[in-house]
Amino acid sequence: MKNPALYAAIDLGSNSFHMLVVHEVEGACRTLAKVKRKVRLAAGLRPDGSLDGDAMQRGWDCLRLFAEQLQDVPAEHIRIVGTATLRLATNIEPFLARAEAILGHRIRIISGEEEAATIYEGVAWTSSGTGRRLVIDIGGASTELIIGESTSPQLLNSLDMGCVTWLKRYFTDGNLSAANFERAIAAAQQILAPVAATYLKLGWQGCIGASGTVQAIQEIMVSQGESEQITLAKLRLLQQQTMACNHIDRLQLSGLQPERTPVFPSGLAILIALFDTLAIDTMVLAGGALREGLVYGMLGRRQECDAQERTADSLIARYQLDRTQGERVRKTALRALAQVSSDQELLAPMLGWAALLYELGLCIEYKRAPEHAAYIISHIDLPGFTSAQKQLLAALLLNQRDEFKPEPLAQQSAVDTDQAILLARLLRLAIILCLRRTRGTVPDFRLAADGHHLTLTLPVGWGRQHHLRASELQQEAHRQTEQGWPLAIIEA
Amino acid sequence: MKNPALYAAIDLGSNSFHMLVVHEVEGACRTLAKVKRKVRLAAGLRPDGSLDGDAMQRGWDCLRLFAEQLQDVPAEHIRIVGTATLRLATNIEPFLARAEAILGHRIRIISGEEEAATIYEGVAWTSSGTGRRLVIDIGGASTELIIGESTSPQLLNSLDMGCVTWLKRYFTDGNLSAANFERAIAAAQQILAPVAATYLKLGWQGCIGASGTVQAIQEIMVSQGESEQITLAKLRLLQQQTMACNHIDRLQLSGLQPERTPVFPSGLAILIALFDTLAIDTMVLAGGALREGLVYGMLGRRQECDAQERTADSLIARYQLDRTQGERVRKTALRALAQVSSDQELLAPMLGWAALLYELGLCIEYKRAPEHAAYIISHIDLPGFTSAQKQLLAALLLNQRDEFKPEPLAQQSAVDTDQAILLARLLRLAIILCLRRTRGTVPDFRLAADGHHLTLTLPVGWGRQHHLRASELQQEAHRQTEQGWPLAIIEA
Repeated sequence: MKNPALYAAIDLGSNSFHMLVVHEVEGACRTLAKVKRKVRLAAGLRPDGSLDGDAMQRGWDCLRLFAEQLQDVPAEHIRIVGTATLRLATNIEPFLARAEAILGHRIRIISGEEEAATIYEGVAWTSSGTGRRLVIDIGGASTELIIGESTSPQLLNSLDMGCVTWLKRYFTDGNLSAANFERAIAAAQQILAPVAATYLKLGWQGCIGASGTVQAIQEIMVSQGESEQITLAKLRLLQQQTMACNHIDRLQLSGLQPERTPVFPSGLAILIALFDTLAIDTMVLAGGALREGLVYGMLGRRQECDAQERTADSLIARYQLDRTQGERVRKTALRALAQVSSDQELLAPMLGWAALLYELGLCIEYKRAPEHAAYIISHIDLPGFTSAQKQLLAALLLNQRDEFKPEPLAQQSAVDTDQAILLARLLRLAIILCLRRTRGTVPDFRLAADGHHLTLTLPVGWGRQHHLRASELQQEAHRQTEQGWPLAIIEA
Repeated sequence: MKNPALYAAIDLGSNSFHMLVVHEVEGACRTLAKVKRKVRLAAGLRPDGSLDGDAMQRGWDCLRLFAEQLQDVPAEHIRIVGTATLRLATNIEPFLARAEAILGHRIRIISGEEEAATIYEGVAWTSSGTGRRLVIDIGGASTELIIGESTSPQLLNSLDMGCVTWLKRYFTDGNLSAANFERAIAAAQQILAPVAATYLKLGWQGCIGASGTVQAIQEIMVSQGESEQITLAKLRLLQQQTMACNHIDRLQLSGLQPERTPVFPSGLAILIALFDTLAIDTMVLAGGALREGLVYGMLGRRQECDAQERTADSLIARYQLDRTQGERVRKTALRALAQVSSDQELLAPMLGWAALLYELGLCIEYKRAPEHAAYIISHIDLPGFTSAQKQLLAALLLNQRDEFKPEPLAQQSAVDTDQAILLARLLRLAIILCLRRTRGTVPDFRLAADGHHLTLTLPVGWGRQHHLRASELQQEAHRQTEQGWPLAIIEA
């Protein structure tokens, strides 16, 4: 019996085979399973370009695992693709015939460009980040480089280098010597040279890395108490630590998974070449890549729609938020912002999302709901939002009511601290003004700012007719003023 | 325009007036607003039993606040009740007439017994706890004592003492002297004396305190870095700290809200008398009381249904869990438990709930889903579950896959550490055995235990036909064995 809400994507990569199974809930993907096996297909490529029998056997064995769970997914919800090694190998027919028999499904060998485009789609839908970005995926036998904006790739390349092929070629003896590293890095630089200028000319605002190499490096950073951002300086330090182990068989770094060890030095060398040649400042890890791109492709995501809008829609559905109330608070908050800030283009969207989603924490419980909302925002995938924007959103949701918690407003880096404080103050006012939750009950107000001093003007007599909100506003004026941000409520 | 999903309850208490507004979502209550104002109605009771004009005015002013939000709630979804002071006052007609005009709704003055029964219902639906329990609610002018089991109260009393009346009577001069405390405690003991024996005879397993006094004490404990459990020793220490301030006007304790200060010493004295006379070991704070009881009464909760079952049903609906899959894992886990444990009555329900709810964390994201599930369980109201059971449930959900985190299994106090480990091991096995998510795919297995050593026996040839699960089971056997809990997987 097939479950019509299940989708699956499998990629037969050069280093690992992966399977992703997702469940569609209210238009959003809920990941049910991720299965990965190190098949090291690329290690079986003979000098004559053929794939050896052992590698084929490892591949079939892995696919037998995957086949078990595929049985429950409708055929039209399954995508299975092969990448670099299967593109290169000269004798893939017998491999594919048996693999397809095992899976009961067709396998498509995709071109490097299609792989790159799909990776970009997967990154776009699962990673934070707006603006133009550079996406890099170091595979076992190929490395994809993509520049894109929102969900559209603009420049694509798939290069013939990968952590498995570079291991075979430049760390054959297993020695973690300076000479081996230099050869591996130089070879990668040579591969990059013909395309580097085009990338540098187009430029990008943020760089996102997919694949196991980048994930392994991030895990090592975290284990060493560093931030998750990858820089060339950190990569060079890692190279030193790696070389200090002398041989791959003795390679041990805090945070490095044993099964990643063999292909770690070669992947690191390729990444160093990329940072160096493309003058990359910092890189963050993607939330997903090829498999996620395959799944989102099946779910028929529109290239044009706004990723932040889609993310918010999906949160509203999944957490059963009251959209009408959220829209009411958003409209009120933005009306207030328009009267006191000249920097609306930067501030309005974030204030709007915070207002729309302010009741997110109620799905856990009322008393600490602002904390729960901040917890959810901090941990959930928020496609279309940068991590700085996530931090700001969490800080605003945390500060929606009760005592102020100013630290997270100061720590976020999406806007200035003063701007973040202003947004929090406006959000709180909007929530109080909208507490009737009913159409036509928000008063006609004016808001004026003089430095940090805000004055909220309500219609004459309003307070005498709306006792609860008038009382809550007085309490809020007291709270903000005590915090050093004076707020006066008057009627005129 | 009324919103048919809104419900509201107001209580006109002797110390505070409260309004609770909830939204019914998927059969569960989501609290939208809690509004509280210190009206101190009981402070306006004259010696002749009449209520003075100032107190009435404070009451009306507060109700004008509440009236604003009531406008959006359907009339049949509103309950407004008056308690002790309004029961006692001899001139309530003019107060009620104007109050009802302000609210646009009838106010019912309820008897002490009805108040006690409603409090019990509110506690039963919102607090952790199973078995027979003693519920205590110290109000402004009355104190309710109830013993009940599940949702049925068995013994009810409403006593004429409260934190406002005791303030007026025993702390008239505001002195925090030993003499004033002694008189206040002795007077409370005298009120308790006639009923104490009946309560002691019936007995209870857990004690839950509602009301502002208990909440204030808990907040002080937390602020002082203590656990949330209230004991007589801690109350006596608080009494010393309170007396050290000499006068109510100078009373300041870390964690004590300023508006609670005046009635804190009198409430503390009553609570000390209760602990002393009824030999209470420890008390925890209720999740709700009178107002919650009124709301649950309107929602038509059945007295007979199982509170844990209802809680699980509500979680499944709110977090859009796959119930069929949860039931499959539960059935499989319980089948395993039945083969290896003789203590099923204690263990089976908790293993069952963990299995039913294991995918709770997926609503946040996949990678750290076990942590998210534990976070949600730790923070959410779980009516019908004790806090020890909540801890166990969170520890099991945290340990559902990946590396073991043994500390929470050892720290929970619902079952022995060995038992908790066994439950976690069985839950993990059941999840793997059910990973096909399809009817008829769980193998016919046997499980045997020899001390910590488990042997899972599968049908001959099963592993060769179910590669993914066989591989996951091997990995799991390795994990458990490495952890010092040997697991063998065989076919026979």
